[in-house]
Amino acid sequence: MQNIDVFVREVGLRDGLQIHPTFMPTERKLEWIRQEAAAGVAEIEVTSYVPRTLIPQFADAEEVTVKALQVPGLTVAALIPNLRGAERGIELGVHKLNFVMSVSRTHNLKNVRREREESLADFKRIVALARSQPAESRPVIVGGLATALGCSYEGRVPVDDVVKYAVALAEAGADEIVVPDTVGYADPNQVRQVFKAVLAAVGNLPVAAHFHDTRGLGLANVSAALDCGVRSFDASLAGIGGCPFAPGATGNIVMDDLCFMLDSMGLRTGVDLEKLLAVRQIVSETLPDIPMQGALARAGLPRNYRSAAQRQADSERQLVAQ
Amino acid sequence: MQNIDVFVREVGLRDGLQIHPTFMPTERKLEWIRQEAAAGVAEIEVTSYVPRTLIPQFADAEEVTVKALQVPGLTVAALIPNLRGAERGIELGVHKLNFVMSVSRTHNLKNVRREREESLADFKRIVALARSQPAESRPVIVGGLATALGCSYEGRVPVDDVVKYAVALAEAGADEIVVPDTVGYADPNQVRQVFKAVLAAVGNLPVAAHFHDTRGLGLANVSAALDCGVRSFDASLAGIGGCPFAPGATGNIVMDDLCFMLDSMGLRTGVDLEKLLAVRQIVSETLPDIPMQGALARAGLPRNYRSAAQRQADSERQLVAQ
Repeated sequence: MQNIDVFVREVGLRDGLQIHPTFMPTERKLEWIRQEAAAGVAEIEVTSYVPRTLIPQFADAEEVTVKALQVPGLTVAALIPNLRGAERGIELGVHKLNFVMSVSRTHNLKNVRREREESLADFKRIVALARSQPAESRPVIVGGLATALGCSYEGRVPVDDVVKYAVALAEAGADEIVVPDTVGYADPNQVRQVFKAVLAAVGNLPVAAHFHDTRGLGLANVSAALDCGVRSFDASLAGIGGCPFAPGATGNIVMDDLCFMLDSMGLRTGVDLEKLLAVRQIVSETLPDIPMQGALARAGLPRNYRSAAQRQADSERQLVAQ
Repeated sequence: MQNIDVFVREVGLRDGLQIHPTFMPTERKLEWIRQEAAAGVAEIEVTSYVPRTLIPQFADAEEVTVKALQVPGLTVAALIPNLRGAERGIELGVHKLNFVMSVSRTHNLKNVRREREESLADFKRIVALARSQPAESRPVIVGGLATALGCSYEGRVPVDDVVKYAVALAEAGADEIVVPDTVGYADPNQVRQVFKAVLAAVGNLPVAAHFHDTRGLGLANVSAALDCGVRSFDASLAGIGGCPFAPGATGNIVMDDLCFMLDSMGLRTGVDLEKLLAVRQIVSETLPDIPMQGALARAGLPRNYRSAAQRQADSERQLVAQ
């Protein structure tokens, strides 16, 4: 088992595909999952347990989950909007359930059609359900705070509200908190402000970041979150995502570029960059119309690039030799 | 005169165009300069005083300089590789001369065909020449340290070497130091390390940053440099640049995205983002084959976006009202 300094989690199969109009065949999704896991990405959000009729892209949620669970060493996560989703996930034996509610009241009403307090009450039932499972099949429960860094309906979201719901999720029994910039509004100063406040409020609970790269600030925001001590980041391969009906929209931060930045900074992710870049082909072959981003893919790795792990090994050898 | 928190300087006409094989007509260059100045970019590196035969793109250096000097309020800068370039610039009355030498010995030999010590000796002659001018026509002399963050020939460049040549340029009489990531190798940790060291070594001398966005880390590097106290950044409109014979190469960080990030962070640049985006059309119309980058151009400004200056005015009004 190699050492990991920063955890990267693939969300492209969920966040990236969810509004893509073309169904990605189940076998291709699984190939993506298997190859990206083989490249060293140890956690993948493979699907979303929403009603089939709502998002046809996730009609194969059961099959994808069951087969992803067969990939050795992979943490299989899935999004859930409510208790029904949690029940489906627990029945399948998924490792991690990513519950999402919005800090913005308007967004919560539009996205999951209920008040934030109802979402919180549902979250408590989800935690209770998880805790009623035998230890070996109990999933990790993540509390997600959509629109924490801005809302397309309400604009700026008060930091106090983010902290309030982060604490509420923590007190309700979340094993982890994820703070998403749902629409891609954040800037590095705001990231520092929000993450510092959330980290201070939730004590020792792990806090992950989920950024979108709408206006190019995604990696700068990662760097700001790293400064605050965040060590888990969501991203999607090739940055896929965004709305096919809004040509300018982009998806999550680009997994490949994220891993390259972290590795350049000397932070080990466990990911083999060349193998990761090779996974892009599965997506481009299967969904030729999906927009793919990525500066590393465009420029290639620097000549004779040595990874953070290799550089660390080099300097350890030097120390021994001295 | 509005307040400026961070200074942005356009270098696309020099760094962006210098290896582009198609000559951009002089009148179009001037239109670009005029419109970008009108958008609020107060300093533009308009050309390079190199031999005409070496870079045909700069065959119009004299005309571009003279006409750019007629743009009200604009600081007109130009690159110089040597004393001959400085003589040309001073004769034209240019406001700022950006002298460049490389920290990497190999790169200096390849780029300006001499040893670093010879570059330094030349820099001293340039400073002496500038100081011999009457005060009103004396240009600002900038000492630039190419490859300060990595060299395509030598790889990592020791921080001690960067500091050594920064101090040498400062002692030789530079009015300002610019630290470029010539090839786009830097990561935020390295930026912090190098800039902190340089800032500590050169005392009160202004230190500017010049990043390329080869692998997508450009704005993250800006954010890291801001943390160190850097307040001047080079960028090129639409990120133009890179090598036409290397399809993956990109140019400087994207001016439009840089200004958007700074403005989002509450840092006033004096630039009107919509007017700046409109300038892109001059480049795309004139050089249809030049690759243009830019997340802001792709996604557009957020709905009802209020600039940093407007937000500041809003909160001042609120204070008065209380």
